[in-house]
Amino acid sequence: MSRLLSRVHVSGPTSRASLTRETGLNRSTIGDLANELTQLGLVIEGESVAVGRSGRPSHLVVPRSDNAVVAVDLGVDRIAVALVGLGGEVLERRERPHARGEHDVEHVVESLAQMVDDVLSGRDDVRCLGLGASVPGAVRERDGLVRFAPNLGWVDEPFTELLRKRLDMPVATGNDANVGALAEHVRGAAVGFNEVAYLSGSVGIGGGFLVNGQPMGGANGYAGEIGHLLVDSNGPACRCGNIGCWEMKIGENQILTQSGRLPGGGPRAVAEVVAAAQAGEKRATKVLANVAEWLGVGLRGLINVFNPEVVVLGGHLAQVWEAEQDHVNEVLDRTRLISPHGEVVIRSAALGTDSSLLGAAELAFAPLLTDPQALVASYAAVRR
Amino acid sequence: MSRLLSRVHVSGPTSRASLTRETGLNRSTIGDLANELTQLGLVIEGESVAVGRSGRPSHLVVPRSDNAVVAVDLGVDRIAVALVGLGGEVLERRERPHARGEHDVEHVVESLAQMVDDVLSGRDDVRCLGLGASVPGAVRERDGLVRFAPNLGWVDEPFTELLRKRLDMPVATGNDANVGALAEHVRGAAVGFNEVAYLSGSVGIGGGFLVNGQPMGGANGYAGEIGHLLVDSNGPACRCGNIGCWEMKIGENQILTQSGRLPGGGPRAVAEVVAAAQAGEKRATKVLANVAEWLGVGLRGLINVFNPEVVVLGGHLAQVWEAEQDHVNEVLDRTRLISPHGEVVIRSAALGTDSSLLGAAELAFAPLLTDPQALVASYAAVRR
Repeated sequence: MSRLLSRVHVSGPTSRASLTRETGLNRSTIGDLANELTQLGLVIEGESVAVGRSGRPSHLVVPRSDNAVVAVDLGVDRIAVALVGLGGEVLERRERPHARGEHDVEHVVESLAQMVDDVLSGRDDVRCLGLGASVPGAVRERDGLVRFAPNLGWVDEPFTELLRKRLDMPVATGNDANVGALAEHVRGAAVGFNEVAYLSGSVGIGGGFLVNGQPMGGANGYAGEIGHLLVDSNGPACRCGNIGCWEMKIGENQILTQSGRLPGGGPRAVAEVVAAAQAGEKRATKVLANVAEWLGVGLRGLINVFNPEVVVLGGHLAQVWEAEQDHVNEVLDRTRLISPHGEVVIRSAALGTDSSLLGAAELAFAPLLTDPQALVASYAAVRR
Repeated sequence: MSRLLSRVHVSGPTSRASLTRETGLNRSTIGDLANELTQLGLVIEGESVAVGRSGRPSHLVVPRSDNAVVAVDLGVDRIAVALVGLGGEVLERRERPHARGEHDVEHVVESLAQMVDDVLSGRDDVRCLGLGASVPGAVRERDGLVRFAPNLGWVDEPFTELLRKRLDMPVATGNDANVGALAEHVRGAAVGFNEVAYLSGSVGIGGGFLVNGQPMGGANGYAGEIGHLLVDSNGPACRCGNIGCWEMKIGENQILTQSGRLPGGGPRAVAEVVAAAQAGEKRATKVLANVAEWLGVGLRGLINVFNPEVVVLGGHLAQVWEAEQDHVNEVLDRTRLISPHGEVVIRSAALGTDSSLLGAAELAFAPLLTDPQALVASYAAVRR
């Protein structure tokens, strides 16, 4: 049942014939499982038909998007909240800027709770199964404690626990790059790859990796912190206490301030810099070239360490890549890579700036997809 | 059968009672499997007895070390060849220095073949199931092609193929750090850990990682190349074409030349430098402090990227760690690590300079442990 539900969640409406073929189960078993999922209110069947290999019509199994989760993308400069249905459709969406000085955790939890209420209001048609949150920091796997989120100024904040209590629903929190990697793997630029390096670019730079097809969390869930990799011993100083960290070279605010703009502008502001460079503005051109250079230097190290099949660049790094890929490629070709550059696919994120938001939704859907029966039962128990 | 054989290969003689308890299979199934393994000549039973939980005597299942593989550790300065029995016992061992200018691949294959013949001569009591080789370079998983081994001067050398043809036996080749990690995980300092970073130190610095308990090979088997991570933008130049690579700071030859010794001395020469520093020699002390500093700088990055449970330092880095751990710890504490330093165990390799050699043996044992029946059958077919 888990496999069937996961399949239609990821791929959308699928005929029973395809499900039979893919799973290797026989037709009547697939029929029984589809019936059970229908009983649980998770799929509908037969509204439309497809013609199977045999030439006979085959029922379509369709995920019911009125089973939904709330997805939260907590950025440094904005908060996005969405209601996402089974199958991945975004049903509702709210976004607001997140001003500096508003990063106090109680304040963030209260803002979020209001946005969640807003998104859910008037959606009594929807069964909300939980909430997934993406946070730009190191999140302890065990309990969702935000161990360290330098760009929010958080250390050991019980964000997950506070939000769970405030909203009285299951909350799962993950690092923004880790969940972004998940979303790109499920329905983005990394579909079908087992060795994935995803880079999320905003104020900080995060990394989310899949190794042997599985998310790399490390001992406590903190793995993938690539923003503080050393790329330049000559500086500048980073707020982490080190010098020459990668995010001090390619982070969003570096691009903005170096090109004479105010920090905190988000991806749209970076897009302006890219547009200015394309229009021939010298300062913007120079800044982008510089970012491309450092992007290449860091990527070289990651490619040697991970030997990925695909590198997916998310957030503002997608824009940098689109504008400067020749330059980045030139840096990668400049020295001999152990994992040859030609064997690595580098591309921008398919989900744009929504990778982390949609990944947060996947985090919240995970318990349902793992054990549909138990999850629906526990939901019913809670609401009774 | 695979599980049973793997268990006694790793842990040595084990009672049927323990095997029953651990596998959750019933007593008679364990008995049947043990009998089959006995028939295949892979274990013996009942020579000794242990008392099970029930107070009844329980047969011991003992791996037969007359099933053996040849293990090869091809270093830059030495070649080690061993005959290793099922269970991990080293039955025979040869070692010879590997002089500069002798790195031509045909020459290496010929030398190795002679050493292998030597190790096997007079051991007609042993069933040799194949050969595993450890190489200081990037090895393509698919066919064992040595893609790039800068310290041997090799690019795209069909080493594995040549050795297989020359010896007419199955040959599996792996990167020295990857197989070293494997050996330390099976019977060394990383037993019981799922998130492992192993560093092999010799002329180059290699990395072998376990993520979610599985070896990280990457797309083609090249993952873990950490020797060329940038640690100092101010140099020196590395033969890879980059500047300030980690192995230019903590590699064996750097320690030797900086302390006024000749390069190419191997771990014994590094031990001399450590001894000299402990005896108060100023130059040696300064060199070691410098190495400790750069070891810490690089480890900081790896700990943030992988969030390992354990970091195992192998080769000469084990000696550096033993001598300088306070200094290395001080570097790690100097700045905030995202994965807190206190949660990471750092230790030297338990298998000393034999990690890669014993890991090469594990590589060769893998097909037997995966499918004992098929492997024994194919061996019988070859020898008939």
